Amino acid sequence: MIKALFNHKSIRNYKNEPISDEILNQILQGAIRGSNTGNMQLYSIIVTKNEQKKKQLWESHFKQNMVVQAPIILTFVADINRFHKWCKLRKAGTAYDNFLWLYNATIDATIAAQNAAIVAEDNNLGICYLGTTTYMAKNIIDILKLPKGVIPVTTLVIGYPDENPPLTSRLPQNAVVFNEEYPTLSDDDIENLHKDLEDLDFSKDLVKLNETENLAQVFTKKRYKKADNLHFSDEFLKIIEQQGFMNNK
Amino acid sequence: MIKALFNHKSIRNYKNEPISDEILNQILQGAIRGSNTGNMQLYSIIVTKNEQKKKQLWESHFKQNMVVQAPIILTFVADINRFHKWCKLRKAGTAYDNFLWLYNATIDATIAAQNAAIVAEDNNLGICYLGTTTYMAKNIIDILKLPKGVIPVTTLVIGYPDENPPLTSRLPQNAVVFNEEYPTLSDDDIENLHKDLEDLDFSKDLVKLNETENLAQVFTKKRYKKADNLHFSDEFLKIIEQQGFMNNK
Repeated sequence: MIKALFNHKSIRNYKNEPISDEILNQILQGAIRGSNTGNMQLYSIIVTKNEQKKKQLWESHFKQNMVVQAPIILTFVADINRFHKWCKLRKAGTAYDNFLWLYNATIDATIAAQNAAIVAEDNNLGICYLGTTTYMAKNIIDILKLPKGVIPVTTLVIGYPDENPPLTSRLPQNAVVFNEEYPTLSDDDIENLHKDLEDLDFSKDLVKLNETENLAQVFTKKRYKKADNLHFSDEFLKIIEQQGFMNNK
Repeated sequence: MIKALFNHKSIRNYKNEPISDEILNQILQGAIRGSNTGNMQLYSIIVTKNEQKKKQLWESHFKQNMVVQAPIILTFVADINRFHKWCKLRKAGTAYDNFLWLYNATIDATIAAQNAAIVAEDNNLGICYLGTTTYMAKNIIDILKLPKGVIPVTTLVIGYPDENPPLTSRLPQNAVVFNEEYPTLSDDDIENLHKDLEDLDFSKDLVKLNETENLAQVFTKKRYKKADNLHFSDEFLKIIEQQGFMNNK
């Protein structure tokens, strides 16, 4: 059993301790070994170590301190730029500047990222994914000088943990794993599947802290609000078009 | 070092040998342990073992034999249905029926899938991802009875390997990993980065078999053609809208 995988916890506080080139290289090799559509490798990985660059990324990632604390930031990008350049040189035409291939490349970039995360954790490093990558895609494109045909997908913060949080809870397995068909979930099912989560002290503390009526409202009224989601959806769709992935007609 | 991760090869021929419930459970638990946005678990996993269902999925996945050969098919779906039902019960409103959250849920479903893949491979099982999942999203939605708010993201075929293919090659690391900024890739760079790949006997055989001028044309003229890509892009975007993820306004 792969201990690192089953013991995963997101780490948000890091020691001021560098990662050796040997371990970084192992992380990157692991990333590249992942499955990818047609072995076309329609992703790239940008390594950030430079303090100035980290500070710029930190601004974009909602000033989360871990971005400047951790020694390595890896930004995983969907990338048809390299492949299309090769196609043009080989008089093969270009066929991947459309939504289907953004989606394929997104999956491939994420598989690479998760491999990197597991290899990092297997080397006693901590990781955290940054969802802000897509919210702030435009800024990240500028900072990392991503050309047309390239879209930031997700970011991994990697470093030696300076905290040891408990494992976070998950919904019971029968809430997310279904046999053969997706079932109709009744109100009673929804109640039962969420009961343990809502009863945790951790959840109750969150509700108190956020001054909401219940845990669901912590998400919809405080953490990820509808107006913000609509705004970032529109912004991200504009970026996707601007970077050349919506040539569907 | 995690052997399973570094030795990954996609397996397309499987033995007629079942997977124990214990191992399947370990695979599913590993999937669920993965990072996910806000711990909201906006994904689900549909387990297919039933022969009739497998045959239906096989039809959708371009009749690739491994889909009926392998004992287990896991379909990973982006899922706001369960979360929104919970939000409605808790009078929290609904905030995630938009493109940003389809994208977040896609990343989370893929992280779960890659964890499942690694745990499977660590148990001497073989896996293969099916990109046809999005091409044929409409059919898969029908077969697995996916409700509104649910989109198929990717599929894993899992079973005991009946073949032992060599490791597939990858581009040199400096083709996909960039330090600090994405570089301008000149024609010479593109030539150099693709030389080893094009010189492989495996690649030369592919070019001969497909009767194209070069390897790039194998992709654009035979495997993943522009007209097909545009068609499947349009179809998939329609499905995304139909399943309720484009309420951006």
